[in-house]
Amino acid sequence: MTVRAHVVDRAGGPTRLHEYQPAPLGPLEVDVALTHSGICQTDLGMIDDHYGQARFPLVPGHEGVGVVTAVGSAVDPRHLQVGRRVGVGATAGSCFRCEWCLSGRQHLCPEKDDVVFRDQGGTFASHIRAGDWRHVVPIPEALTSAEAAPLLCAGTTVFNAIVGHGVRPTDRVAVVGVGGLGHLALQILAAWGCHVTAISTSIDKADDAHRFGAHDFLSACEVPQAHGRFDFILDTVGADLPWDDYFAALRPRGKLCVVGVPTSPFTISQLSILPAEKSLVSAVVGPPAVTRQLLDFAALHGIHAQVEVFPLDQIDQAVDHVRHGRARYRAVIDLR
Amino acid sequence: MTVRAHVVDRAGGPTRLHEYQPAPLGPLEVDVALTHSGICQTDLGMIDDHYGQARFPLVPGHEGVGVVTAVGSAVDPRHLQVGRRVGVGATAGSCFRCEWCLSGRQHLCPEKDDVVFRDQGGTFASHIRAGDWRHVVPIPEALTSAEAAPLLCAGTTVFNAIVGHGVRPTDRVAVVGVGGLGHLALQILAAWGCHVTAISTSIDKADDAHRFGAHDFLSACEVPQAHGRFDFILDTVGADLPWDDYFAALRPRGKLCVVGVPTSPFTISQLSILPAEKSLVSAVVGPPAVTRQLLDFAALHGIHAQVEVFPLDQIDQAVDHVRHGRARYRAVIDLR
Repeated sequence: MTVRAHVVDRAGGPTRLHEYQPAPLGPLEVDVALTHSGICQTDLGMIDDHYGQARFPLVPGHEGVGVVTAVGSAVDPRHLQVGRRVGVGATAGSCFRCEWCLSGRQHLCPEKDDVVFRDQGGTFASHIRAGDWRHVVPIPEALTSAEAAPLLCAGTTVFNAIVGHGVRPTDRVAVVGVGGLGHLALQILAAWGCHVTAISTSIDKADDAHRFGAHDFLSACEVPQAHGRFDFILDTVGADLPWDDYFAALRPRGKLCVVGVPTSPFTISQLSILPAEKSLVSAVVGPPAVTRQLLDFAALHGIHAQVEVFPLDQIDQAVDHVRHGRARYRAVIDLR
Repeated sequence: MTVRAHVVDRAGGPTRLHEYQPAPLGPLEVDVALTHSGICQTDLGMIDDHYGQARFPLVPGHEGVGVVTAVGSAVDPRHLQVGRRVGVGATAGSCFRCEWCLSGRQHLCPEKDDVVFRDQGGTFASHIRAGDWRHVVPIPEALTSAEAAPLLCAGTTVFNAIVGHGVRPTDRVAVVGVGGLGHLALQILAAWGCHVTAISTSIDKADDAHRFGAHDFLSACEVPQAHGRFDFILDTVGADLPWDDYFAALRPRGKLCVVGVPTSPFTISQLSILPAEKSLVSAVVGPPAVTRQLLDFAALHGIHAQVEVFPLDQIDQAVDHVRHGRARYRAVIDLR
C-alpha cells in the first residue's frame, strides 16, 4: 500500500503530493481509503499557522470518509470490517483507560490521537490510519459520503454542545454565525424541537437560514435590542463578540456556548453573569458515541451538510475558497 | 401592632429606631416577630451604598428568624400557623404565576419581593412582613434560631450553587474564601461527600477550615501550582481573582461558580474556557424549596453556622464588625 498525502510545506503554502509506505498496522489500528475530506476552519488555522502551533510539513484534514481497507488484530469484527464505509474525525484514537475515556468523554483524553496535531497527517490523503478502531464511526446508508464528512468535526462539535449542555426541545435558542458549523446547528436544533433564531452579520444569509430551519433571523447589529430572549446561544464564529450584548440576550439561567476560539480574552461584565445565574460554557468535538448519535439523528431527520465538492486536482483552490470565507456552506474534496 | 425598625438614614450612617404601624395584612402576607437577624455583606453593600442603588432611609437585613404572629386569609394553615418558628430570607414573595415561579425558580421571578431592595424594609426590626407565605420557611427543631439565620441567605446561596450546578459527591471541589458563605459551603460540601479544599488568603484560617470539613487547605498564592485539580470551584469572596489561575486549577469540564459580585469585569483567556470545555457559572439565593432542603440537610448533618450574637443595643457595633471583616464567621443580632 502506498499513501498519497497532500502535504503543506510552509505557512500559507500550496499542497504537494507526497507518497510513502505506512508502518505495519498495529493491533488497534484501522486503515481507511478515503473518498472525501471536508475542509474546516481549523485546517486553515494550521495551514496558515494562525496559532503558531503548526509543524511543517503537515497534512491537513480531519473530516474523512472512506472505506476500511485493513483492521488490526484486536479490532472487533462486529463493529468494523474491511469494506465498511466509515468516518474519521478530529479524534482518531484515545487511551481507553483514563477516567475520561472510561466515562465516555474520549475527546478529553490527554493521550488522544488528535488528527489536527498528529505527525502522520490528516485526511488530505488517499488513506488515513486511525489510532484506535473505536473512533472510526460507520456512516448510515441515508447519508452520502460528501455530506457525511462535515458531520465528523463541524457537526459533532455543535451536537456535542447541544447534548453536553442539556439543551431541551422547549428552549429558545440562537445560533451565531450561518457558516459551516452554524448551518448544521440550525438544522439540528430545529429537529431537536427548539425555537431557533439565526444571528449573522450577513443579512443576505437570512433566506438560507430559514431554509436550514431557523424560525427567526436576527442581524448581528440587532442583538443589543434582543433582551432576555434566549435560553441558549451557540456561538459558532470563533471571533470577538460584544459579549455583554449576547449575555443580555439570554434569559435567566441562560448559557452562552462558544465552540470556536475568539482572538482576544473574554471581557464580560460581572452583571452579565450575576444575578440571573447565566453561564459562559464551551464545547469541542464530541466523543465517538456522540458522533454516532449525530449520524443517526441526521439520517432520521434529513439533516444535510450543504457541500461544495472539489475534485482532487483543485485541492488548493478549495483551500483558498475556505480561506476567503466563500464556502456555502462547507467545502469537501473528492479524493478519488 | 407597632413595628420597631432600625433605620439607616444615610450611606455609612448608624441605625435609628423608627416605629410605625403596618398596613392591614394582605391575604397572602405573613407577619413574623423576629428574634434574630443575620448580617450579610450585601447589607453592608446597601448601608454603605457600594452599588449606588440604596434608597435611604432603609432597614437592612434579610436573614430573619422569628415566630409567626399573623397570617393572611389565603395562607394555608397546613404550612404556616401563628406561633410557628420560621425564617424569612432575601426573597419574601414572588408572583407564583410566571414561568420561573411555576417551575420552582421563584428567586428569578421578575416581580419577586426582594428584601434587600424593598421599601418596607428588612429584618433589622421587631417584625417583618413577607409578601407571600410560600417564601416563609419553617425552621427544623434541630437548629437554633441564631444558627438558622445565616442559612437563609449565605447558606441557601451556596446550597443553590451546589444543587443547581449538579455537584456530585464524587467531585473534587474547592471553596474560595473561608468566611460567612465559605464556612457553610465547606460543611455542606463535606456532608455532600466531596473531597473539599479550602482556599484562602488567610493562612491562619486553615485550622478552622479543617474543622469545617475541608480535607485540604490551599493558600490563595498556591493556586497557580494547583493545575487540573478541581471539578468545581465555588468562589464566595466577591472580589477580582486571577481568573485564569483558577480556571487552570479546574479539571476538564470543570466549573468556576461565582456567588459574589466582583468589583471589575471578568477577563478570562480564551484557552481558560476552550478546549477543555470549562465553564464560568453563577448562583444567587435559592428558591424556597432549596432553602427547605438546606435546612433539612443542615439538621441531618449537624451543619452549624458559626455565629457571634450581638444584643440589640450593639446593632451598630455588629454592623461595624462585619464592615471590617472581623466576623468569625457570621454576625447575628438578637432582636429581643
